[in-house]
Amino acid sequence: MSKPLINRLVIIGVGLIGGSLAKAIRQANAANEIVGAGRDKDHLQTAVELGVIDHFETNFADAVRGADMVVLAVPVGSMEEVLFDIKDAIESNAVITDVGSTKQSVVNAVEKVFKGGYPRFVPAHPIAGTEKTGVEASFAGLFHNRRIILTPLAITAADAVEKVKAMWELAGAKVTELNVKQHDLVLAATSHLPHMLAFSLVDTLAKMDDKDQVFRFAAGGFRDFTRIASSDPQMWHDICVNNSDQLLDSIASFKEGLDELTKAIEENNSEVLLEIFTRAKQARDVFTEQSS
Amino acid sequence: MSKPLINRLVIIGVGLIGGSLAKAIRQANAANEIVGAGRDKDHLQTAVELGVIDHFETNFADAVRGADMVVLAVPVGSMEEVLFDIKDAIESNAVITDVGSTKQSVVNAVEKVFKGGYPRFVPAHPIAGTEKTGVEASFAGLFHNRRIILTPLAITAADAVEKVKAMWELAGAKVTELNVKQHDLVLAATSHLPHMLAFSLVDTLAKMDDKDQVFRFAAGGFRDFTRIASSDPQMWHDICVNNSDQLLDSIASFKEGLDELTKAIEENNSEVLLEIFTRAKQARDVFTEQSS
Repeated sequence: MSKPLINRLVIIGVGLIGGSLAKAIRQANAANEIVGAGRDKDHLQTAVELGVIDHFETNFADAVRGADMVVLAVPVGSMEEVLFDIKDAIESNAVITDVGSTKQSVVNAVEKVFKGGYPRFVPAHPIAGTEKTGVEASFAGLFHNRRIILTPLAITAADAVEKVKAMWELAGAKVTELNVKQHDLVLAATSHLPHMLAFSLVDTLAKMDDKDQVFRFAAGGFRDFTRIASSDPQMWHDICVNNSDQLLDSIASFKEGLDELTKAIEENNSEVLLEIFTRAKQARDVFTEQSS
Repeated sequence: MSKPLINRLVIIGVGLIGGSLAKAIRQANAANEIVGAGRDKDHLQTAVELGVIDHFETNFADAVRGADMVVLAVPVGSMEEVLFDIKDAIESNAVITDVGSTKQSVVNAVEKVFKGGYPRFVPAHPIAGTEKTGVEASFAGLFHNRRIILTPLAITAADAVEKVKAMWELAGAKVTELNVKQHDLVLAATSHLPHMLAFSLVDTLAKMDDKDQVFRFAAGGFRDFTRIASSDPQMWHDICVNNSDQLLDSIASFKEGLDELTKAIEENNSEVLLEIFTRAKQARDVFTEQSS
């Protein structure tokens, strides 16, 4: 039997993403030992009972001792604190990686905690998830055929990148690389902005006088459109705070487009309305073909 | 055997909605004869070959002769023209109904063509559909457990309302009534506004410099969120033009909400961000429970 890729895998934050990674790695027999770490003992005990992790630690320094792979699966706002906790206990050969939805902020946190950066830290972001949260919602197939974006820096060790890439491939994912800035810009446009629109739309409707009537007659399109508004508020708070520049740019572009459309409706401008809807439909249809 | 509800059912516009209604009524054995009418002979021939309709007419006056139920399943911008075409040929006992997404505009068209209104016209709107179009996408189950909103006027004949209600119930739908204004307001908020946001978002992203990159890394949430941007541009043009006042009000409310959110991101205001996301998540979760 060949040696597993990982000896001691430590996942800090055993929620939807962390739990699903643990399950996928177990299914692939890719680690000798899977340790969960977190603040909430009951929650971690559940993860053990569900067979997601072998055992758990609530002290992060204890958790990472002896680990050759440490995955930070906490909200991006908690990365710095967790890095600080593990800083002095981490083994010199250990690879650290994360699953944060914003990358510049995580890179900044690493550079702050490990003065000058940490060559064995590989910034990563799995483009996967559901609106559900928690280990109970985790499943081994979550990353199957999903993209994982790695954003290594100039100082990042090649063998560390290779090990993180191999881990995600064993979880069924397709791994690609972007630079940090490209990542944050693309994700602001395709994920952070849509979430803001969905949260804002649902909040707007919920404030209407006849909101019961409004939600009562909402149809399937509305359900799909607003599904992402059920996502975790704390996670999205952290993303807003940690990718605010790119997100504000995206919102500004969107507002320009919406203003153009609003003007066309006000002016009853059929030509512009048809142009906008046709361009959007074409772009969406091409996207569907490419991604199916 | 009991007599079917309808003798000669004429469906003007055999697309997704018209075709699905024809299939549902056939499955329920609720009409002796199902006639399709439209402008495009090839398209109607396909509908005959698919078994959706028994035969077809391209002259709308010829189509409605002898009909006891006429369903207008054309874009709302075409209602007036179609009503004008059938005006002199319609039988005195015939019920006319429509499936338009806006109701005041259809009521206006009826009042314009039939001076003073038409008691046997029942304004109706099935809250069902997909982003697909055309008879090829039609299926008998489209209306199953979906809401149909009837918006009868003071002059509308009670037996005409009953017949339309019975038809939709045989198609598996749940029929409710609203007044015209309530309908247009509720639909502006839950359907027309979300469509504008989806069209506008996709159009905004399609204009970005690195749009290939952008769409390449878009994930499942984006797919759900933008599905409705694949909807028919002409149909949505017609809806914008025919429900512009209510739609503009909805867009204005939405923009206020988005401005509040934008300000909170700019000011790094964690409290407000968490408030908005939590309120939205709660409203969306309640909606999911109620509608599942």
